[in-house]
Amino acid sequence: MTTECLYEGKAKRIYTTDQEGIFRVAYKDDATAFNGEKMEVLEGKGRLNNEISSLLFTMLHEKGVDNHFVERVSETEQLVRQVSIVPIEVVVRNIAAGSLVKRYGIERGTEMDPPLVEWYFKDDALGDPLMTDDHIRVMDLATREELAKMKVMALQVNAVLKPFFKEAKVDLIDFKLEFGKTAAGDILLADEISPDTCRLWDEESGESLDKDLFRFNQGNLQEGYEQLLQRLGGTNA
Amino acid sequence: MTTECLYEGKAKRIYTTDQEGIFRVAYKDDATAFNGEKMEVLEGKGRLNNEISSLLFTMLHEKGVDNHFVERVSETEQLVRQVSIVPIEVVVRNIAAGSLVKRYGIERGTEMDPPLVEWYFKDDALGDPLMTDDHIRVMDLATREELAKMKVMALQVNAVLKPFFKEAKVDLIDFKLEFGKTAAGDILLADEISPDTCRLWDEESGESLDKDLFRFNQGNLQEGYEQLLQRLGGTNA
Ligand SMILES: Nc1ncnc2c1ncn2[C@@H]1O[C@H](COP(=O)(O)OP(=O)(O)O)[C@@H](O)[C@H]1O
Ligand SMILES: Nc1ncnc2c1ncn2[C@@H]1O[C@H](COP(=O)(O)OP(=O)(O)O)[C@@H](O)[C@H]1O
Ligand SMILES: [Mg+2]
Ligand SMILES: [Mg+2]
Repeated sequence: MTTECLYEGKAKRIYTTDQEGIFRVAYKDDATAFNGEKMEVLEGKGRLNNEISSLLFTMLHEKGVDNHFVERVSETEQLVRQVSIVPIEVVVRNIAAGSLVKRYGIERGTEMDPPLVEWYFKDDALGDPLMTDDHIRVMDLATREELAKMKVMALQVNAVLKPFFKEAKVDLIDFKLEFGKTAAGDILLADEISPDTCRLWDEESGESLDKDLFRFNQGNLQEGYEQLLQRLGGTNA
Repeated sequence: MTTECLYEGKAKRIYTTDQEGIFRVAYKDDATAFNGEKMEVLEGKGRLNNEISSLLFTMLHEKGVDNHFVERVSETEQLVRQVSIVPIEVVVRNIAAGSLVKRYGIERGTEMDPPLVEWYFKDDALGDPLMTDDHIRVMDLATREELAKMKVMALQVNAVLKPFFKEAKVDLIDFKLEFGKTAAGDILLADEISPDTCRLWDEESGESLDKDLFRFNQGNLQEGYEQLLQRLGGTNA
């Protein structure tokens, strides 16, 4: 496989392949939080996120949500369709937690009905600031139609994932998505869906099964991710 | 006049009067910035803001924009209609400056066309965070109809004030409005419109004729406000 590393992010490396329009994504063991202020290498995280993300993207595909996932090719790697990432982080919230609570003083645990969809400018240097539709239009980050498409797809993802996690006795509190544009100009769900990018609480104990384990030193991250993978019926590759 | 001080804010005191549904607003000389971190008493500021706000509210009324202003009753005081303030600060921007530049890295001076309307949660303790329509709905701060009304009115205010300032050779960069609800449930423009709440640049020199004089120690605030009042054709009460 021809391997030119195109981009190294906080959690993944993106490589070209010898297939036109196909990238290889290598999930790293690096854990970062608070916009890079807290960092650690957690052995096994890359494998777990690669497996969980593969499992979720496959399931979403079966449920009719188009996404970039092609196939998992090793413990820590998957092939995806190349897209041009829209620099907007799309957050869907079912229950108030995290920055929503901090920013507005909304009580933690408050149910969002309908689910809340938020846009954040994907820019680490600026700290991923919240945006309105109008900011996105002013900055020309996406068209009105693309925003509408992303919102519908984000809510579809939620409608699929929420009951799926619930069967595993896990509450899907909130999650972050990224979308990309194909060469043809179509909007495709991309990036990753993993406990790094979801807030997941055990329905009984309320314990985190996500990156909050690392963010707030709540417990062993790999154990939590492994337990989540098992509960979702994943293999122990 | 019966005078019970109902509320003391950073810039004004609100008193009851013996007229049902009418409040007396006393403009203070206090200058605050950066969410209260910088404070100073600037003699004459109260008088200047009371005059400028009276002048602008009167003019807006003549142009058909309903607002709370009743009459100016002393150098530093005006009577207004009592409303229940909607806890949303409405910001209208014609030109990128201030927090917009800082938050998104948009170039200072970029023209907004159409003007950008933003909502901020009026909560000093939380630092007046930016909100989307959906946050406002979740927190039940205003109905969809009230938001639509406030947006239309904010743009009307801009359409009146921008050419008015331009005649005085002043560019209206951005400004903050507050709206309130009357006992009957109608949305009314309230609070103040003054160089404390507008960003105003001399069209030639680009110099500030607003609170940035104080915020960034750009010059004598009272001189700037006095010059603005004169240019707008105000009296020197
Ligand atoms: N299908 C794809 N095509 C191109 N880039 C992608 C695709 N999926 C994800 N990316 C991008 O890969 C980069 C690496 O991911 P990650 O390490 O999570 O980065 P970041 O530090 O920006 O979160 C990110 O910029 C992400 O948007
Ligand atoms: N017509 C009105 N009726 C009731 N309250 C008003 C009216 N106009 C303005 N207010 C409120 O008066 C208070 C005092 O004003 P100000 O000193 O500017 O306060 P702040 O420190 O909150 O900016 C504010 O809470 C403002 O919203
Ligand atoms: Mg990422
Ligand atoms: Mg005020």
